[in-house]
Amino acid sequence: MTKDISITEVAKRAGVSIATVSRVFHNRGPVKESTRRKIESIIEETGYTPNQLARELANKKTQLIGLIVHDFTGEGLPRAINGVNQIVEDQGYHVLMTSTRGNLDSELRNFEILRSKRVEGIIFATRSFKKEHQEIIEKLPIPVVVMLQDTTENGISSVFFQNKQFAYDATKALLGMNHRQLAFFGGPSASVNSSHRKDGFIQAFMEAGMTPDDKMVKHGDFSIESGYIQMNKLLALKKPFTALVTINDAVAIGAINCLLDHGMRIPEDVSIIALDKTVVADASRVQLSAVSYSYQDLGIQAAKLLVKQIGSGNKTIEQIKIDYDVHLQDSTQRLNVKE
Amino acid sequence: MTKDISITEVAKRAGVSIATVSRVFHNRGPVKESTRRKIESIIEETGYTPNQLARELANKKTQLIGLIVHDFTGEGLPRAINGVNQIVEDQGYHVLMTSTRGNLDSELRNFEILRSKRVEGIIFATRSFKKEHQEIIEKLPIPVVVMLQDTTENGISSVFFQNKQFAYDATKALLGMNHRQLAFFGGPSASVNSSHRKDGFIQAFMEAGMTPDDKMVKHGDFSIESGYIQMNKLLALKKPFTALVTINDAVAIGAINCLLDHGMRIPEDVSIIALDKTVVADASRVQLSAVSYSYQDLGIQAAKLLVKQIGSGNKTIEQIKIDYDVHLQDSTQRLNVKE
Repeated sequence: MTKDISITEVAKRAGVSIATVSRVFHNRGPVKESTRRKIESIIEETGYTPNQLARELANKKTQLIGLIVHDFTGEGLPRAINGVNQIVEDQGYHVLMTSTRGNLDSELRNFEILRSKRVEGIIFATRSFKKEHQEIIEKLPIPVVVMLQDTTENGISSVFFQNKQFAYDATKALLGMNHRQLAFFGGPSASVNSSHRKDGFIQAFMEAGMTPDDKMVKHGDFSIESGYIQMNKLLALKKPFTALVTINDAVAIGAINCLLDHGMRIPEDVSIIALDKTVVADASRVQLSAVSYSYQDLGIQAAKLLVKQIGSGNKTIEQIKIDYDVHLQDSTQRLNVKE
Repeated sequence: MTKDISITEVAKRAGVSIATVSRVFHNRGPVKESTRRKIESIIEETGYTPNQLARELANKKTQLIGLIVHDFTGEGLPRAINGVNQIVEDQGYHVLMTSTRGNLDSELRNFEILRSKRVEGIIFATRSFKKEHQEIIEKLPIPVVVMLQDTTENGISSVFFQNKQFAYDATKALLGMNHRQLAFFGGPSASVNSSHRKDGFIQAFMEAGMTPDDKMVKHGDFSIESGYIQMNKLLALKKPFTALVTINDAVAIGAINCLLDHGMRIPEDVSIIALDKTVVADASRVQLSAVSYSYQDLGIQAAKLLVKQIGSGNKTIEQIKIDYDVHLQDSTQRLNVKE
């Protein structure tokens, strides 16, 4: 009988995962009867005890991953969370989650709370990555993956959408359909992702040799109502426009409903392209042209990267860009240019 | 110098909350300079040390509340979570959250994980409350509040919506407007809340001396797309109907869009009332008549009840029903009965 046999060794001898050995000990969760018997006989052989497991779990592995998110409302982030859960559960981990409502103080405190609960790694989603975040992450002895923000320059691993690039591509698509009078409905001005999308819009515009009109670039939030309000304001300006880029599908639907209420037609009078497509797009009276990318995949990739880093025990910096598609449907059309 | 002074005593002498004392110790979070000085002088006086705080936190109070939810998608639950966070943070607590995707095994395991992280109480949201839940909750030495399901009969505290009652009221409202040919679009048949709403619909119907036609009662999920699909199937039946009750606003919008695509008018041809109203209702081309109740309030009430139970140290059973309103707008109208 060896005294220092570990759960890893038990798992290895039984040819099963650590999670399975743990399940047998705790008499919890599904384990095949034959597997259970095999593990129990190895335990008897080696003298390994549940107390050892408990100690080991206390000292080393908690099989817990921490997740810090700023918000749950909206369609995107909940799907990313589902993606994270899907991967980590497959790997025998569990997720402890905390919500910060975007408050910096709360974000920093949650890093400490999760650390004190001995999570083995943390996935951190935020609207804006700050130096305070960087400082706390650098001090942590466990891997951290940032979700939603590109932290390449901060030397921290991240998984994110290509906000500027797809906004640029979507705007180019409208320019390619001869549209020259374009409006942009952004999200909150504090949102880094929103401002990157605006940058992409403006870059495509300027590359076409034009200067965007400040009055045609509006900020609101991510809601249907906000799209309606912004469109009302835009129409009140009485400035001509033939196309609109919106921060997401909800804002596009609000804008479309406002246009319909003013007796205008989509796409005959205005072409619209949304920079995010979720199930909300199903509410649109016109099939929405939109950029689509998967929040589920965002969560999956973040979780895979974190689990890999926990397993390898090093904090190699890695960046993952989530793919996107520009999908043109019924809400956009080519503008007939009069000679 | 007393040795056994507690953080509670320090807080009391300083006339501040425990959270504030903790913040001063950890040098973290906003504390007024004058408050900080006062606390520091009391600490000096009494000989109370951060190590004592650490020990105290480790041995007694973790200031953590556990939250187990089945799903994050949709508009409702994320708002309830925000409500929970709002209350518990005000009380100096933090929330550790786990997601179960409605899987019973995962739900049960999450109770144990949260307990091993020494949360002081748990809020549990589920689509269906089972005897396995009851067994594990009864064994726990900490208070548990169930959210979304009425667990009066299980002897467990709960905070919930009055699903059957408001579905009954909404159906009565349509009957009161002379509608007699009614359809019902429910959620998944496994959803207890959906089946309670169906019960309310059927009860109102039968009290009016009619038997509901099984073919007019449909099941789907909670999405816009599902409303569209169910309406397509209903129209294919070629059975006359003048009014529709839907499980929520998303399903109502899908149904409305399908009717509009078939050249029908709302409310002239069909009156529609939704049994849930969220921001998604803003997408509707017709102002939706709907039952509204607050998910934020659901979370707030659950958190208040749990914090109260943690504070009082007993597990008194209490039930809280969330209020609702039946709000008639443009999607319903009185049917002119031909004599």
